[in-house]
Amino acid sequence: MIIEINEPCDLVIFGAKGDLAKRKLLPALYKLEKSKKIHENTRIIGAGRANWSIQEYRKIVENEIKTFLNEEIEDYIWKKLSTRLYFCNIDVFEKLHFLRLKKILQQKKNIMIYYCAVPPNTLNAIFKGLGDSNLNSLPARIVLEKPLGVCLKTSQKINNQISKYFLESQIFRIDHYLGKESILNLLALRFANSFVFNNWNNQTIDHIQITVSEEVGIEGRWNYFDGMGQMRDMVQNHLLQILTIITMDQPNSITSENIRHKKLNILRALNPININNINIKTVRGQYSSGVIKGNKVPAYLEEHGANKNSQTETFVAVEANINNKKWCGVPFYLRTGKRLACKYSEIVIVFKKIPINLFQNSNLKLLENKLIIRLEPNANIKLNFFNKIPGLDQEYKLDNSQLEYNCFHKKSIDAYERLLLESMRGIQSLFVCRDEVEEAWKWIDPIINAWKQKDSSILQLYMSGTWGPEDSNLLLSRNNHVWHKYN
Amino acid sequence: MIIEINEPCDLVIFGAKGDLAKRKLLPALYKLEKSKKIHENTRIIGAGRANWSIQEYRKIVENEIKTFLNEEIEDYIWKKLSTRLYFCNIDVFEKLHFLRLKKILQQKKNIMIYYCAVPPNTLNAIFKGLGDSNLNSLPARIVLEKPLGVCLKTSQKINNQISKYFLESQIFRIDHYLGKESILNLLALRFANSFVFNNWNNQTIDHIQITVSEEVGIEGRWNYFDGMGQMRDMVQNHLLQILTIITMDQPNSITSENIRHKKLNILRALNPININNINIKTVRGQYSSGVIKGNKVPAYLEEHGANKNSQTETFVAVEANINNKKWCGVPFYLRTGKRLACKYSEIVIVFKKIPINLFQNSNLKLLENKLIIRLEPNANIKLNFFNKIPGLDQEYKLDNSQLEYNCFHKKSIDAYERLLLESMRGIQSLFVCRDEVEEAWKWIDPIINAWKQKDSSILQLYMSGTWGPEDSNLLLSRNNHVWHKYN
Repeated sequence: MIIEINEPCDLVIFGAKGDLAKRKLLPALYKLEKSKKIHENTRIIGAGRANWSIQEYRKIVENEIKTFLNEEIEDYIWKKLSTRLYFCNIDVFEKLHFLRLKKILQQKKNIMIYYCAVPPNTLNAIFKGLGDSNLNSLPARIVLEKPLGVCLKTSQKINNQISKYFLESQIFRIDHYLGKESILNLLALRFANSFVFNNWNNQTIDHIQITVSEEVGIEGRWNYFDGMGQMRDMVQNHLLQILTIITMDQPNSITSENIRHKKLNILRALNPININNINIKTVRGQYSSGVIKGNKVPAYLEEHGANKNSQTETFVAVEANINNKKWCGVPFYLRTGKRLACKYSEIVIVFKKIPINLFQNSNLKLLENKLIIRLEPNANIKLNFFNKIPGLDQEYKLDNSQLEYNCFHKKSIDAYERLLLESMRGIQSLFVCRDEVEEAWKWIDPIINAWKQKDSSILQLYMSGTWGPEDSNLLLSRNNHVWHKYN
Repeated sequence: MIIEINEPCDLVIFGAKGDLAKRKLLPALYKLEKSKKIHENTRIIGAGRANWSIQEYRKIVENEIKTFLNEEIEDYIWKKLSTRLYFCNIDVFEKLHFLRLKKILQQKKNIMIYYCAVPPNTLNAIFKGLGDSNLNSLPARIVLEKPLGVCLKTSQKINNQISKYFLESQIFRIDHYLGKESILNLLALRFANSFVFNNWNNQTIDHIQITVSEEVGIEGRWNYFDGMGQMRDMVQNHLLQILTIITMDQPNSITSENIRHKKLNILRALNPININNINIKTVRGQYSSGVIKGNKVPAYLEEHGANKNSQTETFVAVEANINNKKWCGVPFYLRTGKRLACKYSEIVIVFKKIPINLFQNSNLKLLENKLIIRLEPNANIKLNFFNKIPGLDQEYKLDNSQLEYNCFHKKSIDAYERLLLESMRGIQSLFVCRDEVEEAWKWIDPIINAWKQKDSSILQLYMSGTWGPEDSNLLLSRNNHVWHKYN
């Protein structure tokens, strides 16, 4: 059932004081207000241990939005948003405090949405507190942020905890990549275009590269990150989500059940990586010092708070393989790292070469068509193809040209804007289900375990501002492939 | 055997005084001179009934080039070209006059190339005169311009006449479309790009449209044109050549034998059109008066020298079908006409729709990918495809976007430049062989014969400045297709 946009909600933000709330959620809510997407009776209730009055909270939020919104705040819109704001003083470890929240919620009969923008160790207290106060029944919803565990076991634990109080249909697990316009467009690209649809399998595609490159380091979160590493922090969620969206079969319709079902089929078909193939399927690295945009940056081990013996990876490159009829034989190269040469995300589809090269005398040895989908920044779609260079030469000389389309320059919509709205709509398509999270861990865990074993693969240092360790190139050159150059 | 560019030639232009020589051949030779593509010992010998001295001829050519070259003439280049120019006074009906030509040619041992830029009724005299004077033996070459007959019979007659004196390997039949850069690029597009190569058949392509639209009328050549009509003047050669290049199988290599062989396979597989299907497969029209670019223009029957009863077509639209495994079921719509809304040539490949439309609620009913190849003016390649319109709407809204590549803006090379050079190189790939000409007539003749029969199709008037008769749309709408709009 699709709940219409115009149903009023009470959006409770646990962790109202936190970074996510102020940097992402509140600016996104302001923009939704501006787009007139929020029901007039919807309320936003900050929840946390602070002892703020409503007026204080509104003032605080106003300042936060002014700081983090990437545009001038408009008085009229802010006033409208401001009247929606309430605050509830609550320590989630205090069972009775939930009655305060209940009191506020009982003022209206709105649909309750609990957004958990909190550290993992407070999650269970929230689930339980809401459940014990009878704030958990349908149509209430609960929104969870990553990390949902650090391995299959811890992930299952969280899922088991929440499932005591909430049905799967109430749980909205955020992977903010799923809210990005350029990711949403992948469905249109794949399933509304026959020339893509008909060329999407191991008969026509040679291999696929997915790169999510970060320029930043660990940004003062050394301890948090060191317990995770790039594999858990980026691959388990974002890169695997991109992989499933790029490779899943056509869903029967664009409903969450159908899409999740098709994505799960991919996760379940991933070829295991473990101690037997860890060396040829993965590369892991850690940044050493270097220069980015003219500024010296420290090594991972020199960052504030660092443990000098850390073996945590800040870079991963993996060759994933999908064991199904459609994709067997096609390598999927996933690559992500911190302190790389620049920030961008891109999917590169490399098509098979034509078996017979009529233009052998041409200046180009390799005749590979590539579809290059830039996710960010400046999302665009390019199709590499070959044309004759105009000229009177006797032989054909070919040139690598690009059909190009700049997709999204007109409108920028933040992923959180989209995902908050979808949670208010009650549509789960852009959220991750329990099975997806757990299947992803089932593939990730053996990789991390293999890395931990002696004489398995080695953590390689790479200079900040480069594209990662040299072995990242080796991973591809072993199959006669090369990373598509950033440009 | 590829004869190298640096072999010296004697290029004899029969019809030195004519329109083709001055408008096309001499400016093209100037440009080849500029590109340093002409061997230093190559000579150009004008031949005709005029009684010009060499000096007079050089002066005349200088003025012609100044008039018809689309750029400033450079003194240095003109001087170089000028010293190549000779003139031979010859009446081709006077057998002994050929000895004058022989005398000039015997001064050097260059490869002789006879370019027949003359009316059809003088052709046989030239063939015979050259033959009887022993000017016809290998490696001599002869270049023929259209029209090569007005039906199979007259075409065979010319071919029989010439074959008495010249081997097929010596005969270079011009279809100047084959010298256009944008046509040459079709080979690269089709055979160097796997995403095109793999999608080029009746499994993926719904139908193909080929439009050669002219803005001009009959330009003072009423009598000539009235004896031909648009079908013979444009479809039999240019449009069928485009059709064969677009549909032929991959040749084993880019040699003339291989390419011609594959093109012939297409011509031989064309489904016959005759009195039985003439009405559903063809539309013919004749322009009435109208307005083009703000200027009133007369009807075809009001043009200077017109016979008011003429039933000659100035517009044709045909649905061609190819009876082979690769193309059966795919309609090929060919359309060409005079005094249409504007001048352009374009190939539109319309791909099949995806059987299941996931985006039924979208604003776009039709989800057809199109590859649009603009041949002229401003050659470019566009790929129509569908993207999600960025926005927060619950449903996917799709937009028709275009991946675009502007091919040839950097360098303009005239078709005659290319074809003259190829004739000097002795490479026949871009020329039409006897079998192609005759196969084309075998398909064209029954159409024209059917038109002549009473109660068959009707010649329809269309207003100048439009896209032809209304029935041209009906031809496509019968199959649920529409002409791709010019833009």
